[in-house]
Amino acid sequence: MRDPAENAQLALLLEVTGTPKPGNVDRRRDHENLRFEQFMAGAVGAFEGLRAAADGEPIGRAFERAVEGMADQSGGNTQFGALLLTVPLVRAAATHRLTPEGVAETVRRTTVDDACGFYRAFEHVDVAVDDPPEDLAALDVRRGTAAVETLRRREMTLYDVMERSADHDGVAAEWLSGFERSFEAATWLLENSGPIDRRVSRTFLRLLADEEDTFVVTRNGADAAAEATERARAVLDGAEDADALAGEFVDRDINPGTTADIVAGALFVALERGLVV
Amino acid sequence: MRDPAENAQLALLLEVTGTPKPGNVDRRRDHENLRFEQFMAGAVGAFEGLRAAADGEPIGRAFERAVEGMADQSGGNTQFGALLLTVPLVRAAATHRLTPEGVAETVRRTTVDDACGFYRAFEHVDVAVDDPPEDLAALDVRRGTAAVETLRRREMTLYDVMERSADHDGVAAEWLSGFERSFEAATWLLENSGPIDRRVSRTFLRLLADEEDTFVVTRNGADAAAEATERARAVLDGAEDADALAGEFVDRDINPGTTADIVAGALFVALERGLVV
Repeated sequence: MRDPAENAQLALLLEVTGTPKPGNVDRRRDHENLRFEQFMAGAVGAFEGLRAAADGEPIGRAFERAVEGMADQSGGNTQFGALLLTVPLVRAAATHRLTPEGVAETVRRTTVDDACGFYRAFEHVDVAVDDPPEDLAALDVRRGTAAVETLRRREMTLYDVMERSADHDGVAAEWLSGFERSFEAATWLLENSGPIDRRVSRTFLRLLADEEDTFVVTRNGADAAAEATERARAVLDGAEDADALAGEFVDRDINPGTTADIVAGALFVALERGLVV
Repeated sequence: MRDPAENAQLALLLEVTGTPKPGNVDRRRDHENLRFEQFMAGAVGAFEGLRAAADGEPIGRAFERAVEGMADQSGGNTQFGALLLTVPLVRAAATHRLTPEGVAETVRRTTVDDACGFYRAFEHVDVAVDDPPEDLAALDVRRGTAAVETLRRREMTLYDVMERSADHDGVAAEWLSGFERSFEAATWLLENSGPIDRRVSRTFLRLLADEEDTFVVTRNGADAAAEATERARAVLDGAEDADALAGEFVDRDINPGTTADIVAGALFVALERGLVV
């Protein structure tokens, strides 16, 4: 029987394996500077932090360890957002509270120290983020450890940090909503049949069709994000071919990474609830 | 920095990722009853046993734990032979003896208890093996725990068990030779350039061209094994296409699994020696 830390590592691996996920690296596609094998190394390196989360280490520090281990490969950021979802989910599962309410409580209890750990995680890897509003410049995540003093002075917990990002970051929005989309998509994974890599593809497309990807907004702009969602709907309607779209989005560097992060969260919940691999 | 247990897990993942490896599951191919995602789950499950090997648990017990964890997915045997190579390699690396001489000494020191652990591992998973010669029927690995009494009476260590299989099992032959092919193929992986999944493919083909695969002998017969080696040579000579051959061998259920096991051993050595992922 896999424990929560092991299921989280497997969720990371199955997320990137799922194919086609238009725009993402998957088992059949690489990006020019980010390859499938680097996701494998990232998932191996993340495990120690996931284990720490299961064992009760504070969430911010467990997350920082997971990111540091994930970054120990030459591709850069592979699954930062997926870890920001799976780390609290692992903690909730390890404390027998893997429900929307249980995870909501888990993240509301995060501390200022957890926020500091989150900021320190950015020292280990480059993550594509938006410029913050002017009044939040001191808390730009790219400041990393330099922002810690401000966090302490303002007594901001990690939950507070997520609250300020929830309107433009789909991962932070999960923290605020009790991981609503992760839990809903987990039911799709469990209800579907067939090979896991195809179920993951279908789940990814449904999530993207439902909601614009905030990582695409950040990197490619609002129009590209709207187009990605439109075209995911077209695939689900049978009007477009998923594999062709995957090729096109990789070529155009449109990578719905936040949607992939939520798929990883959903896979973790599904594995904990008995998804058979 | 990954430690030996982590590098062994990554070696398992990179082995199955490498493509094309004619006849094997790889990142682009599944078998009808054995899928890529089951290898992911197998590698996740094996980690605890690999960690135990690094931490000094007896090799037989660490191997049994690794196999038990590997088998915790619905595909059956994924990487039994790869674990039989990586477990002693991990121990050698963890004790700063990752050389042919160091690993040879590590396996020569195995005990009767280690042999018992090896036999118990067969309780967790079905592995395709030959019928043993009549005088060795009491030691048929398929007897699992039932063979333990015989092992104790004859005072057979795990090294002794491997010695009796080395003429018809390429993994056991590695134990006898100081892991000669694993170390040699590690240099190929390090000397090649380009994406790891292609280096793995090339290394697999060179190993198969050099020597017939004993798993193919067991499952498909000597003629099929000779053909597999011939055709790997043809690929290396440019006379055959590796992807076409991969499709054909999957269709014909010719799976050079022992060659894949040795690739996993080679990947572990290469990662310990600085292969960049």
